[in-house]
Amino acid sequence: MKIVIAPDSFKESLTADQVAKAIQSGFMAVFPEAEYRLLPIADGGEGTVQALAASSGGRIETISVTGPLGEPVKAKIAFSNDGKKAFIEMAEACGLHLVPGNLRSPLQTTSYGVGELILHAMEQGASELIVGVGGSATNDGGMGMASALGYQFFDDSGELLNGRGRDLFCVDSMSGTNHDKRLDEIKITIAADVENPLTGKNGATYVYGPQKGLPDGRLADMDEAMGKFYQIACSHLGKEVAHVPGSGAGGGMGAALLLFAGAQLKKGIELVLEQLRIKEICRDADFVIVGEGKIDGQTIFGKAPAGVAACAPPQAKVIAICGSVGKGYEVLYDHGFDAIFPSIPALLPLEDILGSAFNNVERTARNVAALLSQERE
Amino acid sequence: MKIVIAPDSFKESLTADQVAKAIQSGFMAVFPEAEYRLLPIADGGEGTVQALAASSGGRIETISVTGPLGEPVKAKIAFSNDGKKAFIEMAEACGLHLVPGNLRSPLQTTSYGVGELILHAMEQGASELIVGVGGSATNDGGMGMASALGYQFFDDSGELLNGRGRDLFCVDSMSGTNHDKRLDEIKITIAADVENPLTGKNGATYVYGPQKGLPDGRLADMDEAMGKFYQIACSHLGKEVAHVPGSGAGGGMGAALLLFAGAQLKKGIELVLEQLRIKEICRDADFVIVGEGKIDGQTIFGKAPAGVAACAPPQAKVIAICGSVGKGYEVLYDHGFDAIFPSIPALLPLEDILGSAFNNVERTARNVAALLSQERE
Repeated sequence: MKIVIAPDSFKESLTADQVAKAIQSGFMAVFPEAEYRLLPIADGGEGTVQALAASSGGRIETISVTGPLGEPVKAKIAFSNDGKKAFIEMAEACGLHLVPGNLRSPLQTTSYGVGELILHAMEQGASELIVGVGGSATNDGGMGMASALGYQFFDDSGELLNGRGRDLFCVDSMSGTNHDKRLDEIKITIAADVENPLTGKNGATYVYGPQKGLPDGRLADMDEAMGKFYQIACSHLGKEVAHVPGSGAGGGMGAALLLFAGAQLKKGIELVLEQLRIKEICRDADFVIVGEGKIDGQTIFGKAPAGVAACAPPQAKVIAICGSVGKGYEVLYDHGFDAIFPSIPALLPLEDILGSAFNNVERTARNVAALLSQERE
Repeated sequence: MKIVIAPDSFKESLTADQVAKAIQSGFMAVFPEAEYRLLPIADGGEGTVQALAASSGGRIETISVTGPLGEPVKAKIAFSNDGKKAFIEMAEACGLHLVPGNLRSPLQTTSYGVGELILHAMEQGASELIVGVGGSATNDGGMGMASALGYQFFDDSGELLNGRGRDLFCVDSMSGTNHDKRLDEIKITIAADVENPLTGKNGATYVYGPQKGLPDGRLADMDEAMGKFYQIACSHLGKEVAHVPGSGAGGGMGAALLLFAGAQLKKGIELVLEQLRIKEICRDADFVIVGEGKIDGQTIFGKAPAGVAACAPPQAKVIAICGSVGKGYEVLYDHGFDAIFPSIPALLPLEDILGSAFNNVERTARNVAALLSQERE
């Protein structure tokens, strides 16, 4: 009997790894001899790339790069075991957490350090790169990153711009002549967990600008500047990217990687499932156990459990163990879920529930396993 | 596939019948063709006998009997389909609910009406009688009931006593000469859900006297009077009953039925399971589903789910669906339970949980059934 355990984290109480261990422990009480595959997964948001790196069993380096306000910061970059694949999390170089609240401003911040991380990966010989885009303090359209990679942007007097957000207002022309030629060879995949286009009311500036510190009064003109910058760059490079869903991720980093680095864009969760080889591992599974803190009708929209369920083969039962079950959960029965079990034991104070989450998941798993057993206990 | 569904009620939210229907509905979504046996059960407390009467599919009569304060009251009595078995609930004739709060007093109340119900049952030709003992307003040691059946109790001047609680203090002698001789033929079973002895600190007077309106200052002498009454009666009839666990039930009605009516005493839950023929019905069951509002370590002590689990045959899986799971539940795994599932979906306000109890049980049952199915949905 093969049991694949591939849960997401329970936000506020357990990491994905802890959830997986709790489920395994519950199952072991009933099936001590079964083959277990534990695949704790992230849902494609922040931390995804680090999770992927961890799952690839490789090494992590910490290097100094240009931070969001120009100061040096320590940023992690991970490599697969064979060194051929590198994993970069944008937020490592220019995350919002690196900028104190009173200094947050998309006009001042730059994604330059992301470009430096990419350069480092190429220098180390990586031929494939996964870049997690999200959680950034920037809205520079990726101009900083592109500058680090050798692209040059000029104002109307021919002055070289250095790629802060405010430079979007001044771009008049550009040159790709000096861009790092290794970019033409390397395969870059963007992991994005949002589908915003680059500009407009649903674009990077309007949707994420305010939380990065952009005053409401500057939204319209910064959105316009972003659009103008990409008109110039796209026209120069002969490629259109601004309409692609996800191009607005990371303050325009999605668009920048598509345009300047020839990247392809994937949903974080798809990339995760692909990297973890979920489909392959589930091929001969008897049971696939998924999990999430709360499972409801929204779970089918790009959440990890739905992604895993879609990878399960016909003969495997897919069982969700969650913290709580919410409105609209029934739709999951039509999306590959055989059964769903909340693990809350009783109406107790929230802190008790969170504090006993491991035991609750373990108990639920043990009881689920008892039903799957052909033998009576 | 045969599925026996034998849940208790969920106090505060669902009757046992509703719980059974919710479980069946959930299972039907997965096993529409299975054979279902619904056996909603009571846990042996008040209402047990009515539940048994209902399960026997017989008729219910309402007759006028002497109430707890001597006034006439309408009391129900049930008969099995063939009329051979009668079901009496003591509280119908002398329940605490029949006495207004300010008039409650074990000194004034009598169980005389219970004797009248027994007489009626015998007149109707019943050869077997089940008497539910509990919830009474009396602490007369069953003297009222015995008087109705023809036993006579006298004070020290030879005056006939009529069997109110206060008469316990005056009994000096008795006669069984005029007792109804049909009592010698009929089989009477007492259904009691408490195990108190007749007298002492754990006896009828001390434990239940106060809630029936007996002042604390009268506990000691009434307990003593009860003991003296039974010394006289037991000595006269050559039988000892005061020590039997349950003899203190119903203000001494347990002892009175044992002594004056040759009854046998059973735990309510055992009687229920016997009457419902649970063991026989479960014999060829594949799954036995039990349920209770809250399942915890106490459940093994005479609660319905534990009683049902003990009746399940080795090949059947016993699955509990409950409202919530509490401390010490693990012990149930050693008492015939294969799995236990709480049905609370999330931390919601209590009124929401109670209001959606049917749906929660149905959902849980459906998910349990999906695990039991050999086919993937």
